[in-house]
Amino acid sequence: MNGSELLPSWSEGDAKSVVLEFVESVSRVGASYVPPEDRIATFDNDGTLWCEKPQYVEADFVFRRWKQMAQADPAKAKEQPYKAVVENDQAWLTNLLGHVPDLVKGVTEAYEGITVGAFEQAVREFFATAVHPTLGVPYTKAGYQPMRELLDLLQARDFTVFICSGGGRDFMRPVSEQMYGIARERVIGSATAVHYRDGELYRTKDVEQPIDDGTGKPEHIWMRTGRKPLLACGNADGDVPMLETARFGLLIRHDDAVREFAYDTGAEKALAEAKERGWTVVSMRDDFKMVFGP
Amino acid sequence: MNGSELLPSWSEGDAKSVVLEFVESVSRVGASYVPPEDRIATFDNDGTLWCEKPQYVEADFVFRRWKQMAQADPAKAKEQPYKAVVENDQAWLTNLLGHVPDLVKGVTEAYEGITVGAFEQAVREFFATAVHPTLGVPYTKAGYQPMRELLDLLQARDFTVFICSGGGRDFMRPVSEQMYGIARERVIGSATAVHYRDGELYRTKDVEQPIDDGTGKPEHIWMRTGRKPLLACGNADGDVPMLETARFGLLIRHDDAVREFAYDTGAEKALAEAKERGWTVVSMRDDFKMVFGP
Repeated sequence: MNGSELLPSWSEGDAKSVVLEFVESVSRVGASYVPPEDRIATFDNDGTLWCEKPQYVEADFVFRRWKQMAQADPAKAKEQPYKAVVENDQAWLTNLLGHVPDLVKGVTEAYEGITVGAFEQAVREFFATAVHPTLGVPYTKAGYQPMRELLDLLQARDFTVFICSGGGRDFMRPVSEQMYGIARERVIGSATAVHYRDGELYRTKDVEQPIDDGTGKPEHIWMRTGRKPLLACGNADGDVPMLETARFGLLIRHDDAVREFAYDTGAEKALAEAKERGWTVVSMRDDFKMVFGP
Repeated sequence: MNGSELLPSWSEGDAKSVVLEFVESVSRVGASYVPPEDRIATFDNDGTLWCEKPQYVEADFVFRRWKQMAQADPAKAKEQPYKAVVENDQAWLTNLLGHVPDLVKGVTEAYEGITVGAFEQAVREFFATAVHPTLGVPYTKAGYQPMRELLDLLQARDFTVFICSGGGRDFMRPVSEQMYGIARERVIGSATAVHYRDGELYRTKDVEQPIDDGTGKPEHIWMRTGRKPLLACGNADGDVPMLETARFGLLIRHDDAVREFAYDTGAEKALAEAKERGWTVVSMRDDFKMVFGP
């Protein structure tokens, strides 16, 4: 294949050229060759592989559960975070990071004590029915087509590709193969601890440490792979430490208000470091021919 | 290939037949077929893939370091666990599980604060030079040849094979590819937490929870793979919970005092459960034509 047949949803331009050049240079015999076992690539998920606006996909999943819990137990409707969803308190719901203790309490209580299989079933039902609030398509269609092409290209070049997300590991795994062609064992993310009892695994309300965001990302990548990434890709400040450990850094910039969303909030540090360190910045507006799949 | 060409270092007999029948039945189209993505196999390491007597391989590695530390700092020579190695106190050194707090202190202090790369270098030097005390060969030759053949067969049948050991994850990874054909990202084990700072990862003295033994094994397997194993293999009581979650359980029995070591101590519960649950017990004496490689 020549370059124009690779990454067909990427516009011709610097970003596409630099990415292709790097991928080909490390997988072709020559001065820059890297053996396949060291070709580790890690991708953030929210805002990097799928759309994270107007709210996190996982927030939609959890808010629905909180509503159910409040209906089943009216006392809950008076306490946060359940109160916020019952009252549709947008000020609260759109400022999740301003309420981290309540958020963690709600997220861990939501599915406490059920088996990992029952949780998987709940996730599958969500993805089978829920629709993205502005795109009007199932969330499984809210992944970025150009990024899927990049994941496929890397795997075709014998990269071992991992998702490394601040979001819930067990929330992404049921759809990672279908959406991204990434096997569930290559999904790294934040998680509630599981507890073994009599042949079965149950969810607990303990948060696994560290959270897989910020400095937790390169720590998790080491724990899971025993390597630093050859290529890493993110879109936000929480991805900076992961990008700092990679030989090739890629930063997705949300600057397409027409086809997706335009926001640099939460990516200020990442954009500044990209300049200093020579990470490749991908403009969704200029570098993507299409954003979502057909 | 017909059966007799597979697992050539296994003696013909029930254990070999049952293992081959299971592996072929799940990978061949038919009633027992399992799709490749669900063919997860997990193997304990100490006593299952390599020899764990007269002491754990990792104990030899750590004891050498304790001796160095005591030489560099004579005050240490007066406190445990350093005192035990300086004085060659066999009562202490052969009863490590009777001194867990001192043991954990020593293991975590031994390489605290160094980079993960420097630790890997120390491990590589150990394996390049250290010799098994009774076998008289490098530890990298102290793996069981029949087990290596089984790992290779499973991978040829599109199983994704993981090591899941109570021992140190970062101690096994530098040799897992060479000894077992298992990539480092498929090594699961106990670990000290790593800490990210300025583009680099450092070892800490915090033990990652849970320890990857007993109930921690199926918990780790879930964390790392999002699955329960289709096939699991161990040799000791600490492997019981892992075996309980597997569809096919394999238990290695150390009953060959001539070619290896004979001991059921620490495997009493596993052997009893094997009978109840129908796990296949592999007698090293009767089922292995050879124990170690040529």
